[in-house]
Amino acid sequence: MLHPQLCSKDARISARRDQIIAAARLCFRKHGFHGAGMAEIAKTSQLSVGQIYRYFANKDAIIEEIVRRIVMKKIRLMTGNAHNLQQVAHNLAHRRIGNLSAPYKEDQCIEQKEQAEIDHALMLEVAAEATRNPIVEKIWRDSEKQLFSEAKSLLSATFPQFSEAEMTAKVESLAVICEGTAFRRMTTVHADAEHLEALYNRYFQDLFGTDLTTSKLE
Amino acid sequence: MLHPQLCSKDARISARRDQIIAAARLCFRKHGFHGAGMAEIAKTSQLSVGQIYRYFANKDAIIEEIVRRIVMKKIRLMTGNAHNLQQVAHNLAHRRIGNLSAPYKEDQCIEQKEQAEIDHALMLEVAAEATRNPIVEKIWRDSEKQLFSEAKSLLSATFPQFSEAEMTAKVESLAVICEGTAFRRMTTVHADAEHLEALYNRYFQDLFGTDLTTSKLE
Repeated sequence: MLHPQLCSKDARISARRDQIIAAARLCFRKHGFHGAGMAEIAKTSQLSVGQIYRYFANKDAIIEEIVRRIVMKKIRLMTGNAHNLQQVAHNLAHRRIGNLSAPYKEDQCIEQKEQAEIDHALMLEVAAEATRNPIVEKIWRDSEKQLFSEAKSLLSATFPQFSEAEMTAKVESLAVICEGTAFRRMTTVHADAEHLEALYNRYFQDLFGTDLTTSKLE
Repeated sequence: MLHPQLCSKDARISARRDQIIAAARLCFRKHGFHGAGMAEIAKTSQLSVGQIYRYFANKDAIIEEIVRRIVMKKIRLMTGNAHNLQQVAHNLAHRRIGNLSAPYKEDQCIEQKEQAEIDHALMLEVAAEATRNPIVEKIWRDSEKQLFSEAKSLLSATFPQFSEAEMTAKVESLAVICEGTAFRRMTTVHADAEHLEALYNRYFQDLFGTDLTTSKLE
């Protein structure tokens, strides 16, 4: 058992970091990484700038922690459901990002949806910033590596018949479709979801060699 | 024939606008839309802030013109080549963005490549900014609509056998893959290009119902 004092100190540090991250998410969301300075983050989190620096060395460290948490969330959401490709096709066709492999619930709490929107906007910000800031580029690359490897091991467990190289290409292709869909989230919807879903279902069937319509019913 | 004086005035206006756009591209690239102000754009273009406002009402108008030019370039590059889907599959698998449907030339001039990189970074910036600025969101949506409709009419001319709804879904799916690939441009290359190219070729064959390997040789 941990020493009680240590426990409460850890809990305090953790609560302070949460408070700063929540404030920084809002600030970055509103003004971008460049527009939001440490002073604004401090003000929004109701702490002094000095206090912020006790928990994060600089703005990049805050960005890193934000991305780390988004990736953790994505991995948690994928786990145990990544093989439900028919659900993935359905959600992609309806441009439902966030938890791609879970059935969409209309009554999903509004805060969850809002947080998913903020996650998405922040990841776009990360991608744009990565083109000019090598530290953010590294954060972005590392987070992608972790997500990719997690998705690959989940899919490999369900479809063990493919070679390493084959599975890697399939996961890359899936990642391209997921991220392309998320990227196009704000563009006009041209296609109707039924036609698009049929195309994705056929492609995923070709990718993984099973009739997904049947396997879902098993 | 235009009046010579009018001609030279038009030419001067056009040259000034080009000068400002070139400077703004560099500034936005370096510091993002928020980080780069009119003063910096003026300095980089060796004009006064007052002069800049004679050609563009505000920063959003400059962003709009930058996006308009990128879209024009993309449409020009697509034209006459959009049906070469085997080339598209090859370039996507090698993450060659820019002129997706043209054979890749190693000796393509460096400046062209650099400009394509800047175009890509600026479009990421536009996407991120669109999540918080309704004017930029509109610029982004309008430009996408124009590109989408151009791609659809080019592909419809080559593959007239599909209904409107079918073709729209196919073009959406292609757009998702193109933009997802561009978005992932800076992530680690996990898959080998040959496997990925084979997957895309099979998918495009399924989409357009022809053996692309044969049709290329026609």
